[in-house]
Amino acid sequence: RKKYGSSVCAMEVVYNVTQKPYIDEEVAKLLQLKAKLGGDDGKIQFVLKTPKGTRDYNPKQMAIREKVFNTIVHCFKRHGAETIDTPVFELKETLTGKYGEDSKLIYDLKDQGGELLSLRYDLTVPFARYLAMNKITNIKRYHIAKVYRRDNPAMTRGRYREFYQCDFDIAGQYDAMIPDAECLKIVYEILSELDLGDFRIKVNDRRILDGMFAVCGVPDDKFRTICSTVDKLDKMPWEEVKKEMVNEKGLSEEAADQIGEYVSMQGGMDLAERLLQDPKMSQSKQACAGLTDVKLLFSYLQLFQITDKVVFDLSLARGLDYYTGVIYEALLTQAGVAPVVAEAQNGAPGSTEESVSVGSVAGGGRYDGLVGMFDPKGRKVPCVGVSIGIERIFSIMEQKAEACAEKIRTTEVQIMVASAQKNLLEERLRLVTELWNAGRGAVQKNPKLLSQLQHCEESGIPLVAILGEQELKDGVVKLRVVATREEVDISRGELVEEIKKRTL
Amino acid sequence: RKKYGSSVCAMEVVYNVTQKPYIDEEVAKLLQLKAKLGGDDGKIQFVLKTPKGTRDYNPKQMAIREKVFNTIVHCFKRHGAETIDTPVFELKETLTGKYGEDSKLIYDLKDQGGELLSLRYDLTVPFARYLAMNKITNIKRYHIAKVYRRDNPAMTRGRYREFYQCDFDIAGQYDAMIPDAECLKIVYEILSELDLGDFRIKVNDRRILDGMFAVCGVPDDKFRTICSTVDKLDKMPWEEVKKEMVNEKGLSEEAADQIGEYVSMQGGMDLAERLLQDPKMSQSKQACAGLTDVKLLFSYLQLFQITDKVVFDLSLARGLDYYTGVIYEALLTQAGVAPVVAEAQNGAPGSTEESVSVGSVAGGGRYDGLVGMFDPKGRKVPCVGVSIGIERIFSIMEQKAEACAEKIRTTEVQIMVASAQKNLLEERLRLVTELWNAGRGAVQKNPKLLSQLQHCEESGIPLVAILGEQELKDGVVKLRVVATREEVDISRGELVEEIKKRTL
Repeated sequence: RKKYGSSVCAMEVVYNVTQKPYIDEEVAKLLQLKAKLGGDDGKIQFVLKTPKGTRDYNPKQMAIREKVFNTIVHCFKRHGAETIDTPVFELKETLTGKYGEDSKLIYDLKDQGGELLSLRYDLTVPFARYLAMNKITNIKRYHIAKVYRRDNPAMTRGRYREFYQCDFDIAGQYDAMIPDAECLKIVYEILSELDLGDFRIKVNDRRILDGMFAVCGVPDDKFRTICSTVDKLDKMPWEEVKKEMVNEKGLSEEAADQIGEYVSMQGGMDLAERLLQDPKMSQSKQACAGLTDVKLLFSYLQLFQITDKVVFDLSLARGLDYYTGVIYEALLTQAGVAPVVAEAQNGAPGSTEESVSVGSVAGGGRYDGLVGMFDPKGRKVPCVGVSIGIERIFSIMEQKAEACAEKIRTTEVQIMVASAQKNLLEERLRLVTELWNAGRGAVQKNPKLLSQLQHCEESGIPLVAILGEQELKDGVVKLRVVATREEVDISRGELVEEIKKRTL
Repeated sequence: RKKYGSSVCAMEVVYNVTQKPYIDEEVAKLLQLKAKLGGDDGKIQFVLKTPKGTRDYNPKQMAIREKVFNTIVHCFKRHGAETIDTPVFELKETLTGKYGEDSKLIYDLKDQGGELLSLRYDLTVPFARYLAMNKITNIKRYHIAKVYRRDNPAMTRGRYREFYQCDFDIAGQYDAMIPDAECLKIVYEILSELDLGDFRIKVNDRRILDGMFAVCGVPDDKFRTICSTVDKLDKMPWEEVKKEMVNEKGLSEEAADQIGEYVSMQGGMDLAERLLQDPKMSQSKQACAGLTDVKLLFSYLQLFQITDKVVFDLSLARGLDYYTGVIYEALLTQAGVAPVVAEAQNGAPGSTEESVSVGSVAGGGRYDGLVGMFDPKGRKVPCVGVSIGIERIFSIMEQKAEACAEKIRTTEVQIMVASAQKNLLEERLRLVTELWNAGRGAVQKNPKLLSQLQHCEESGIPLVAILGEQELKDGVVKLRVVATREEVDISRGELVEEIKKRTL
C-alpha cells in the first residue's frame, strides 16, 4: 500500500505553481499520504474522509434540507406535478452526445463485464429517456435526486461533485408559452417562500440568440462557441468578452461590437416589441419567432403576477446543447448573501454549466428535440422545465439558522421517560412500550435526571414522565412540561391517555 | 458502432446450456443488438432501457413507495432516531475488507484520475465511517437510501442491483440488550403497521454459533465456511446441508450430526435456559455469554410485548462478516404472498447476503468491531442495527393496491379550473394564480369539459371550477363537487375564500 500511495503522489504532483487552489489540494493529498503512513507505531491507517467534492449531512443539516425540500415539493405538487424516479446510473450511450463539452465531466463506472454505465449528469436526459421508453407524450413531473459531475478541481467555488437537483418539467403539446410561464411562476413561488432575499429571473430565447448572431454576421459554425463567450458576461466585463470573441475566436471587430450593443439590452415586453421593429433583428425569422414568444410569455407572466422580478436579458446564454427555445436563470441579488466557500477538506468543485454566476440558484428552458433523440422513429415531445439548485440555497438556510440561533429539532420525540432510581428500568420500558403502541414518540433514559432534563430543553422534547419509588407506591407518575418546568402527578392508569391528549 | 456491438456479443455468448435464465438473458442481449442495427432504413438506434438490475418508478409506484417510507420513517422517529446522509460512493478502501466473499459484488467507478471510488454496498459501513470520522460515540440514526450490488445474473429472484435499504442503528454504550431489543420492537411495529400478513422474527447470536461449532468439533479455521453452509438451511433440507459439510467442506460426519441436532432447535427464553444447562454447549464460554444475553433479550421482548412473533432459532446464521453478537432476520410467513418475479426486460439479480429466504424482509444484528476498523486508534463503538429491505415489501404493497383497485392519488391537485369556451384562457389563468397564491393545488385545462370531468373522477381531484361566458357576465363561477356531481354558483369575488374553506 505504501508503494502504491507514493506512486500516485508522484504522478499527480505535476502542478502549475500559479494555481493556489491546486497547490492547496496537493498539500491536502500529501497530508493524507502522511496519515496513511501511520503514527509513531508505523501502523498503516485509513484515510478517513468522503470522496473529493462530496460530503455527509449531519442530523441538523438533514433537518434543514428536509425543510427546503418540503417547500419545493409542496410547490411542485400545487402545480399538479407527479413524481418519478430513475436509476442513479444510465447506459453510457444514453448520456452520449447530450452535454456538448461538459461530457468530459461525466462519471463512468468501471467495466466489470456487462453494460457500460455512467452516473447521471442531470435529471433532464434520464427524464427524456423515460418518456421515450414509455411512450409518454404528456406529463407534469418533478424529480428530486442527486446528480454527479466530475468537475475541474481548480474551480472550487462551494460546488459539489455530488449534489441535488430539484427538477420540474412539463412535457406535451400546450398552447404556446403557457407551460413556459408556469415554470417561471414556480421559480418565483419557491424563491419567495424560502425567503432568501431579493431575486431576479433572467429570460432569453435560443432563437433570439441565434438570430442575433446571424444578423450580426457571425458565421453559422461559430454560433455555439460565440454563445459560450457571451455566457461569460456576468463574470467578466464586456471588454474582455469582446477580446475573447475577436482574438481567440476570430470574430470581426464589427460583428463583436454589434453583439455588444444587443447583449447590453434588458427590459420586459416593451424590449421584445422594440426589437421586433429593429431593422436588423427583424431580418431574422428565428429571432422574430423568439421575440413574439417572449412577448406572449410576458403577457402570461402579467396574469401570473410575477413581472416584478422577471427581466428579458439578451446576454443570458445557458451552456447546455439541448435547449431550443426560451431559457431562464434565477439569481439571488441580496447584498448580504455570503458566497459559498468550498470545504477545505473535500475540495468541492463546481459545474461549468451552472457556475455562470455565483448567485444562480435555478435555471432551465425549453428542449423540444431531446425526447426525439431517444425515440426510434424520432418522434418529438415538446418539453420545458426548470431545475432548482439546492446546494447554494441550502447553505444560505444553514447560515441563517446558525445566525438566529434557532433550535432545529432533529427528532420527533414527544416524551422522555426518566426515573430517579436505576432499578426502575422495567417500569420505564413498560411505559415507553405503551407510548409507542399509542403512536407517540418516546425514549427512555438512564436515571441521571438533571442531565436528562437539560437534554430535553436543548433538543426540544416537550414532556418528561418521571418515575420514582414513592410515586410508584402511590400509583402516580410525575409529568413535567419542559418549557414551563411545571410538574403534575398523574395516576399511572390515566397517564397514556393524558399524554395522548397533550401530544396531538 | 456496429462492429463494437458485434464484438461485445461474440465475447459474451459463452453460456452454459443448462442455465435457462442465462439463455434468456442472452436472447435479450441479441434482441438489443438487433434493435441497435436498426429498422429497414438501416439507421442505428439507441437501446432504450435502464441498466440491468435497475428500474424506473412511475408516479403510481412512487406514491406507494412514499406511503411505505412514511410508515417506516414515522416509526424510526417515534423511537427517537435522527437521520443522516452520506455520498453514494465511498473511497474504495473504505469498503475493502468489510463484506467477505460478497466484496466481488461491489461496483467500482472507472479510474478517471484522482481517487479510486466504489458505490456503497450497504448503509452500515458508511455509517461506521461517519461515526469514526466525526468521533461520534452515541447516536440513534436512520438512513434511507439506495445501495448497489453487482450481483450474479443467474440469481434472478426479483431482486435489484440498485435497491433501497431503510436502516435504523443505535451506537453507544447501553445496558446489555436494551438497544438490541428496541431494534426488534421496531421491526415488529413496522411489519405490523404495513399489514403484510403474518411474520416471524428469527433471533440467534454469533457467539452461540461459534460456541456450537467449537463444542461440535469444527476446526477454528472452518467456522466461517461451515456457517455459510448452515445459512442455507431455509433453502435446502438438512440432508443436503450435511452432505455439503461432509463432502465439500471436509467435516467429520459425527461433527455434522451434532450440528444437525442443535440447528433443528427453535424456542424462546426456555430454549436459552435449557442450552445453558446442556452438558456440551455449556462448555463454551462464548456460547454461554450468547445464551445469557438471549435470555436477557427475551425478558425485554416480553416487556415490549412482542414475544409472539420472535423465535430463538439456532439455524439462523447471517452472511456478513461484521456481526459480533445478536443477529436476526424477519420473514413474511403468510401463504398468499406471491414470490416476486424478476422483470424480463431488465433482469434483476439478487444479493447473496439477503436471498437467504424469499420471504426475508429485514435483518440485522450487533457489530461492535466495525467502527474500530475506521478509528486511527482502534477505539470501538458498540453498535446494533436493523435494515428493512423495501423492494419486496414494496412489490407486495403494489400487488395489494392493484388487487383492491384502490385509486392511488399521484398529485395533490385540489381543484381543476376548466371552461366551456376556449377564449376564457385569461380568466382561467387569473383564477389559478389566485389559488396558487392562496397555497391551493390547482391546474387549468383546455375546454374539453367532459373529458376534464372524467379526468377528475379518475385521478381523484375533488373540485372543479367551471368558467362560462354567461357566468362571467353574471359575476359567478360554477363550483362542482366531483364525487357528488353537485354544482353551485358562487360569486367570483368570494370564490377563492369558498374554495379555501372546502380544501383545508
